[in-house]
Amino acid sequence: MSTKKRVVIIGAGFAGLKVARMLANKSVDVLLIDRNNYHTFTPLLYQVATCGLDPSAVAYPIRNIFADAPNVHFLLGDVTKISTTERSITIKTNTNGDRFETYDYLFVAAGSNVNYFGNESVQKNSFSLRDLNDSITIRNHILRLFEKAAWTDNDAKREALMTFVVVGGGPTGLETAGALYELYNNVLDAVYDKHDKMQARVILMEATENVLLPYPEKLRKSAKKQLESLGVEVLTNAFVEEVGSDFVKLKDDTIIRTNTVVWSAGVKGNPLAEMLGIELERSRIPVQETMEVVGLDNVFAAGDIAYLEQDNTGKGYPGLIPVAQQQGAVVAKNILHDLQSEPYETFSYFDRGSMATIGRRRAVAWAFNKVQLTGFLAWITWLGLHLLVLMGMRNRAQVFLNWVWNYIFYDRSVQIIVEGDRHKYQSEVLSRTN
Amino acid sequence: MSTKKRVVIIGAGFAGLKVARMLANKSVDVLLIDRNNYHTFTPLLYQVATCGLDPSAVAYPIRNIFADAPNVHFLLGDVTKISTTERSITIKTNTNGDRFETYDYLFVAAGSNVNYFGNESVQKNSFSLRDLNDSITIRNHILRLFEKAAWTDNDAKREALMTFVVVGGGPTGLETAGALYELYNNVLDAVYDKHDKMQARVILMEATENVLLPYPEKLRKSAKKQLESLGVEVLTNAFVEEVGSDFVKLKDDTIIRTNTVVWSAGVKGNPLAEMLGIELERSRIPVQETMEVVGLDNVFAAGDIAYLEQDNTGKGYPGLIPVAQQQGAVVAKNILHDLQSEPYETFSYFDRGSMATIGRRRAVAWAFNKVQLTGFLAWITWLGLHLLVLMGMRNRAQVFLNWVWNYIFYDRSVQIIVEGDRHKYQSEVLSRTN
Repeated sequence: MSTKKRVVIIGAGFAGLKVARMLANKSVDVLLIDRNNYHTFTPLLYQVATCGLDPSAVAYPIRNIFADAPNVHFLLGDVTKISTTERSITIKTNTNGDRFETYDYLFVAAGSNVNYFGNESVQKNSFSLRDLNDSITIRNHILRLFEKAAWTDNDAKREALMTFVVVGGGPTGLETAGALYELYNNVLDAVYDKHDKMQARVILMEATENVLLPYPEKLRKSAKKQLESLGVEVLTNAFVEEVGSDFVKLKDDTIIRTNTVVWSAGVKGNPLAEMLGIELERSRIPVQETMEVVGLDNVFAAGDIAYLEQDNTGKGYPGLIPVAQQQGAVVAKNILHDLQSEPYETFSYFDRGSMATIGRRRAVAWAFNKVQLTGFLAWITWLGLHLLVLMGMRNRAQVFLNWVWNYIFYDRSVQIIVEGDRHKYQSEVLSRTN
Repeated sequence: MSTKKRVVIIGAGFAGLKVARMLANKSVDVLLIDRNNYHTFTPLLYQVATCGLDPSAVAYPIRNIFADAPNVHFLLGDVTKISTTERSITIKTNTNGDRFETYDYLFVAAGSNVNYFGNESVQKNSFSLRDLNDSITIRNHILRLFEKAAWTDNDAKREALMTFVVVGGGPTGLETAGALYELYNNVLDAVYDKHDKMQARVILMEATENVLLPYPEKLRKSAKKQLESLGVEVLTNAFVEEVGSDFVKLKDDTIIRTNTVVWSAGVKGNPLAEMLGIELERSRIPVQETMEVVGLDNVFAAGDIAYLEQDNTGKGYPGLIPVAQQQGAVVAKNILHDLQSEPYETFSYFDRGSMATIGRRRAVAWAFNKVQLTGFLAWITWLGLHLLVLMGMRNRAQVFLNWVWNYIFYDRSVQIIVEGDRHKYQSEVLSRTN
């Protein structure tokens, strides 16, 4: 072990990765911990779920990213305990048993969890789309439903199988709904025997009065219109009360028969936040503008797990990638400042805008809170920006080629139902060797 | 249902697919049944297992292949019963419950299973590499071992984690051993902290006196030499007696500490063969030269599951793709002949040769039983032929680009440990909706 100060980073999402990259090859020792051996480009998870991309196109092996940074170490595992008094953490690995590590600086960037708002039926029967396993689970599920529908003679049953409900009118909800519609009605339907009816219904449900709540009125209206022109049914003021294995029930007693409810209606702070033993703010870790956790020394938090009030609005910053990255940059700089005994910087959000895509050539984009784009132009902007920020040439090339291919040929060849079934067995083998 | 004769094909491997393709858009009704919704290009499974290719690169969605053939229907499921008297089969689907289907012609092409020769310890503790799930299981396993080894201080334990044993000196064994060696010693080692020892041992075990038993002496010697020049240890006359979770024991009491034994030492006929209720020949279905099953009317079998003596040698034809495809072609022709009341054709094997690759630029090739190639020239031949036979432009382009990329950059980005974990939950949801 070196005598360098040690920075422990929990989570290799956009905030954690930013800090690790900024501290790479600096005079500190970095331990980056994540439960996966890859960083996930979450904005494209819906593409994996709908057979548009291979899982590897949106996953970047963490060790590859830091291949040239010998001061950054990676540990695969789940953090189970944090002691801010001892400055230590405990990590449960499924490969190495429990590990105990100490830190000089701790950066908590474990992100968010799905918020089911206490509704157990939703938690039990809906699908979420938060990580790569989720997206493969959904992919396998919808491909199995398709095979089932193809051999189902009962019209009502087949209609339920071919009805997909996406709950939540944020960008993820819109993107998932649009992609699901195209998958079934432009891709899968082409391979099914022509003489049968295999028309899919995709319903996007939003509890408020329109989709894309924080967007300007014009873009919100355009988004709804574009969704509907594609074929997606948009149900606003739709409050989900119960989800069953073959239905969803709204507060107004509407019942829709479906075997697939994708829940993207809300997130909350990761439970890991509670390990700090401090009072949380709306399930998140309260931080100062320096990104230091309120009341703790040498502990930082950023991204979805952190709470920082935005410009006296009484609301926190939105759970967006640029927020996480920019907050992470402040954390990295402040750690380096501290090592030089320099004063800390504070976070101020530079909002480049946001966008959401709807199917293959529809989108809305909102740049610098000023420029508002819709339709094909917005889609091209979205495509370009995503390709620019996709890390690693190989993935960029892979995603780009996939897109061109799918765009021209409507050919999504990632229609394979596959999973490593012997997972349990492997874990046994591994645990026996500990 | 039409009044056309109905051909039921069990298995969408190379034999089954050949028949379905030859009967596509002909005046018959075809039902193709497989337990996966894709055809697997098995010769490249080892590439998936060793992070060289994405699963989708070697899997071809069956419905896509027959998108333009309305007379070919696909059913996802496992055949559980065959009645040749009633001319019917029962299929267990995990999406549609049990189905009952009748046939006019039955083609059994369910392939082979791993042969553990009755050794339970091998069956329990070794990995096989027969389908896409296997290859993902191995990929996840070896990536986890790597993460484990990276944090293991105990030298002996780390050496066991970094020791890989491949049993079986056939082409698959050679290819797997070579690719594993390169994965650990040319790819993964580059991302691990430079100061640590992470050298992997790869041992290829063969029970006979040399690898590639049916090949000419010159090629067998060359294959062994090329494996050794790459860094793979070749252990001949090595008879595996027991496999544990962390060791393999040979008949001569040699014990090697390892957490990974890949078993590719033998295959036997698929148990499905027994459903025909006839006497089998070496666990396989005996067929005539017309590929008709001996003693049964309108039932054909071909490929790995069929037994046909090769030119009075007392041995069956080898379990090779060209054999399966050429036998399949005879089946398809004979079904069409029968519909026209024409006489049957018989099978005669046209042997274009065989080849095996060893790592990134080593190989042996044996063309038309005459031309013998070794080294880089053989590797280029192997590469070209595999690309030629890879079905579907997209996969071909994908595999080719991957290869060029990996060849130049040694960058195997498919190093992700991922699986759809909620499989059980999904099955529950599906079964509840039956």
